[in-house]
Amino acid sequence: MKLFSKNINLNDIKIEDGLFAGYQDLVIKTVLPYMHDMLEDKVEGAEKSHAIENFRIAAGRTNGEFYGMVFQDSDVAKWIEACAYSLCVKPDKELEKTVDVVIEIIKEAQEEDGYLNTFFTVKEPQHKWQNLRECHELYCEGHMIEAAVAYYEATGKDVLLNVMRKMADHTYNVFVKHSEYEDLDVNGAIPGHPEVELALMRLYKVTGDKKYLELAKLFIDNRGNKDSYFEKETQRRGWNHWGDYPEDKEYTQNHKPVREQDVAVGHAVRAVYLYSGMADVAFSSNDEELFDACDTLFNDIANRQIYITGGIGQTSHGEAFSKDYDLPNDTVYAETCASIGLIFFANRMLNIKPCSKYADIMERALYNTVLGGMQLDGKKFFYVNPLEVNPGLSGKPGIYEHVLPVRPKWFGCACCPPNLARLITSLGNYVSSYNDDTITEHLFVGGSAKYNLAGNEVMIDTITDYPKSGNVKYIIKKSEKEFTLAVRIPGYTRNCDGTYAAKIKVNGKECDITKVMSDGYAYIKHDFKDGDTVLCEFKIEPKVVYANPFVRQDAGKVAIVRGPVTYCVESLDNENALLQTLRIKTSDTAFKESVGEGVLRGKIILDVSGYAAKADNELYSCKKPEFSEKTIRMIPYYAWGNRGENQMSVWISSRE
Amino acid sequence: MKLFSKNINLNDIKIEDGLFAGYQDLVIKTVLPYMHDMLEDKVEGAEKSHAIENFRIAAGRTNGEFYGMVFQDSDVAKWIEACAYSLCVKPDKELEKTVDVVIEIIKEAQEEDGYLNTFFTVKEPQHKWQNLRECHELYCEGHMIEAAVAYYEATGKDVLLNVMRKMADHTYNVFVKHSEYEDLDVNGAIPGHPEVELALMRLYKVTGDKKYLELAKLFIDNRGNKDSYFEKETQRRGWNHWGDYPEDKEYTQNHKPVREQDVAVGHAVRAVYLYSGMADVAFSSNDEELFDACDTLFNDIANRQIYITGGIGQTSHGEAFSKDYDLPNDTVYAETCASIGLIFFANRMLNIKPCSKYADIMERALYNTVLGGMQLDGKKFFYVNPLEVNPGLSGKPGIYEHVLPVRPKWFGCACCPPNLARLITSLGNYVSSYNDDTITEHLFVGGSAKYNLAGNEVMIDTITDYPKSGNVKYIIKKSEKEFTLAVRIPGYTRNCDGTYAAKIKVNGKECDITKVMSDGYAYIKHDFKDGDTVLCEFKIEPKVVYANPFVRQDAGKVAIVRGPVTYCVESLDNENALLQTLRIKTSDTAFKESVGEGVLRGKIILDVSGYAAKADNELYSCKKPEFSEKTIRMIPYYAWGNRGENQMSVWISSRE
Repeated sequence: MKLFSKNINLNDIKIEDGLFAGYQDLVIKTVLPYMHDMLEDKVEGAEKSHAIENFRIAAGRTNGEFYGMVFQDSDVAKWIEACAYSLCVKPDKELEKTVDVVIEIIKEAQEEDGYLNTFFTVKEPQHKWQNLRECHELYCEGHMIEAAVAYYEATGKDVLLNVMRKMADHTYNVFVKHSEYEDLDVNGAIPGHPEVELALMRLYKVTGDKKYLELAKLFIDNRGNKDSYFEKETQRRGWNHWGDYPEDKEYTQNHKPVREQDVAVGHAVRAVYLYSGMADVAFSSNDEELFDACDTLFNDIANRQIYITGGIGQTSHGEAFSKDYDLPNDTVYAETCASIGLIFFANRMLNIKPCSKYADIMERALYNTVLGGMQLDGKKFFYVNPLEVNPGLSGKPGIYEHVLPVRPKWFGCACCPPNLARLITSLGNYVSSYNDDTITEHLFVGGSAKYNLAGNEVMIDTITDYPKSGNVKYIIKKSEKEFTLAVRIPGYTRNCDGTYAAKIKVNGKECDITKVMSDGYAYIKHDFKDGDTVLCEFKIEPKVVYANPFVRQDAGKVAIVRGPVTYCVESLDNENALLQTLRIKTSDTAFKESVGEGVLRGKIILDVSGYAAKADNELYSCKKPEFSEKTIRMIPYYAWGNRGENQMSVWISSRE
Repeated sequence: MKLFSKNINLNDIKIEDGLFAGYQDLVIKTVLPYMHDMLEDKVEGAEKSHAIENFRIAAGRTNGEFYGMVFQDSDVAKWIEACAYSLCVKPDKELEKTVDVVIEIIKEAQEEDGYLNTFFTVKEPQHKWQNLRECHELYCEGHMIEAAVAYYEATGKDVLLNVMRKMADHTYNVFVKHSEYEDLDVNGAIPGHPEVELALMRLYKVTGDKKYLELAKLFIDNRGNKDSYFEKETQRRGWNHWGDYPEDKEYTQNHKPVREQDVAVGHAVRAVYLYSGMADVAFSSNDEELFDACDTLFNDIANRQIYITGGIGQTSHGEAFSKDYDLPNDTVYAETCASIGLIFFANRMLNIKPCSKYADIMERALYNTVLGGMQLDGKKFFYVNPLEVNPGLSGKPGIYEHVLPVRPKWFGCACCPPNLARLITSLGNYVSSYNDDTITEHLFVGGSAKYNLAGNEVMIDTITDYPKSGNVKYIIKKSEKEFTLAVRIPGYTRNCDGTYAAKIKVNGKECDITKVMSDGYAYIKHDFKDGDTVLCEFKIEPKVVYANPFVRQDAGKVAIVRGPVTYCVESLDNENALLQTLRIKTSDTAFKESVGEGVLRGKIILDVSGYAAKADNELYSCKKPEFSEKTIRMIPYYAWGNRGENQMSVWISSRE
């Protein structure tokens, strides 16, 4: 298997875009400093973090007890990783110094043999590596490896990289060479929460050390063994961290070997982190079978288990996938982190095989659930991203308890905000990728980028107000010879008859995209010179969308999308009507676009033709409900919940 | 307030009816013996009951430890009560002897001062009356009082009645006279689980002893006091039975004084048991305000919180009411016991004020949720009565865990089967009631009844195959002077224009019902003689029903009813189609009736014109789903789940 393309170095891409430059700015100016204050327990009234202090204690700098979750270290790692990306977006010597100080503490917290984990170093040194199912040692290691690689790539500084190589080498000795902990039977070992697999692959790519590939592959191939490692280690050690409960093998994707898995099951974040690692290993080991398993799992998610908002994980029970076509809107989980993990997965698949089905899903997750996970002011965050909230029910005890109707400040288990921060700051990685002769454009984000093709340094500016309009202009700023610009033709431009509402003009001359399209990408091969332009015109207009009739929760309902953006209705825009009384008109639907004001400043608002039911007194009646015409106002889903608690719904009942 | 009518003595009514005589036979032959075997732990493989053995231990007959729930005694009480009704339906000396033996044990288990409760006598004698919130002493007392009254009324034997008078007198001493337990501050005391209120009122009616009315009224008026009794007793005693958790005042209807309550909240069974007791006290104390509160609460349930199956209690969280118009079909609770309690409540309201709104709800609950709570063979029971089950989801961990897709054998907390048994055997009480000059017919059940009006002994036979047809013929077998026969005109016969599809013919001559109707009852005053007939012709035909547009879960859907019977679709009758792909045709809907076979023998089956969607591959698409015509087969809801696990739904999406 040939790697088709690779991610651009973040230092080589600059985002200058009406939408995302603002989000990057928000994360850099607001979220990252807030996160650091959180980690250092400087935010008044916030839940105690103690995460950096744990490292200080492990380093012997201060005395104290470990405090926090067994995976508290990962909060520091994700902050460092996000800072690394932030330094690529916007160099900041002060921030770099702050990070360097923390890295010094981490370095000192590392044990002689390379072991690094403050929970076990400080609190339970006798229990290291004994409880992979519950104790997230490998998960924390994975995040710190990602931080180390990102910080090295951003700054060239290798202090943390060397720390994490030493930890990874130690891990290799434990799990591959079996040269440490002689009385620990690690045959068949797997991480409880996948993450270290994809992290080891990043470490392998940056160092070239095959040990890390070998270790990642081992963890992946061990998963789903008939004899459960988790049962074995539980019996052996005689203690538990969270309590004595039976193993749910689907929860940890440990129900069958990964190559045989064809339906996404279990904890959604764990699943997509695992699949991302699988895709990395598939490529690097030239393992077609493993790639096919990834593709099958991706298809299951994309065709049967994803919300129209790009959310995944339908049930709060285990924060997990449910069943194909079971997509409840009001009890949904759809964790922000799961959609971010899905983007990681799609990115890896795209680099192996550019195929618009991966990028369409990546785009849907990004523009809806991921952006919606953050308040427009960057100060509050959703963990759960419902497609329907009902005041008085959502967030209240019972089946809607996890579905908060407005974003809270922070979480005890603070995974989503830092994950958002690292995704937004590293967004450049997802926009385009390249190989020796081809630059592949996956997302349409304004800015400039520099690529080192074989023997040809290329610079391209991207001018667009996407997704307000679907016009994307690539201006070649530098190129000395022929190369191919591959541009994704978004799935939403596909007409019902199979044609595409998309045009591409090279230096003003339209090319027949049907002749250059492969797997949803148009391949423009041209002897590009400085000043050449490639103009894409994707038709972006509001559309009525139907769910597959197998989805029982959306029967008789429609959603409205506009390009990659899914829309929703909030009752406060609709005279506080109960949203269940509204109907969207599905024949000759009229849409009117306007531009939002106030907190929705600049967002495209839609007025859609529809109806409202009159509610009479009887609960059940043989009288058909009566309807009167009513214009229904809709806003982008990602902007919901920014104006206080009110009813919201993505899917609205329809009427001809 | 004048009591309008009273329940007939069960010995004076005989049910001979195609539907209910069979159910009574089933309960008497199958359920009651099974229950006794359960109580005596003779059922192999069943969960241990130990309920009668607890009484033996308390009586000093055997040695042993108390076993079971803190309310285990109530299982024995409900069995005795059902046996009492059964003896009215079908005298059985063997059964009577069995019950007498158990009653002797209960008598011996009573303490010197009248106290009776095996949990506290055997296990925690030092804790009596200290934990009304959790420990169900008064609840068990209530059920045993009901058993005592029923057994006395059925057999004339007063052993258990005297036992329970002594216990009720003791309870009066504790809570009214404060003459026992000097260090127990019982000011403001209320039962955790209402039941004793309505039971004390039954005891009051049969004994005429006003102490019981006084005690019932006290418990009702104490509820919702600003200073929570439950908090007070918790602080005082320093121990808990179930654990330390904050009081949810709505759960126990303790959030405000009952006279101020206007929305049904909290645990549904507790609610309707409370409201039943309130109605009893309202009448007996001539308390209009309390009656109005009952009426308001009834209206809230009937107009905003009941399922079309007569199920109540929308959420498994606390087995409770949710919010007005929140009626989820797939996560519903709708406990069988709650619908039975609703029938108790409606019965009491009807006796105060005959009003068809009460009887319509009673009928809906009876013919749908209550009958559906029992397998057609009488051997298995539902606790939760969903309006939608989805194999692979229902009954599985998560939000559908409580929603079993088929009836299980019995329950650890075995409240529903005995409650069903006592309702079915005492059904005669709900069919009609009477006062000095009027006999009021609420339900239409074939059989014969004898009434002692003032100075006029009346016998009436009822000939009907209701609800197969709506023809109900009353034949006067004995009467010596004028009286009024008041007949409910069922709500389902009301046409959209306000007229009724109902006729009444007295000795063959049609009378104008609009002239004799009041609150939904037609009052036929006539100088009835032996052989006179009153023929009611209620038009029973399948109808399409719409939910109020405020109900979000039923938007765009319809249900089918036929008279009092709600219908549902099971996938096995529809080529295993996914039910969400079906649409019922709502213009010119054609219905075809046929008679079921096999396990559905004799049930009326409906074939309804509709459509089925073709499901293409895409999860979300701008293509409208395509439909082809399809006849949809429906069966009575109460007969669902009798042919193995398969998808079921009451509400089906509609299409013109």
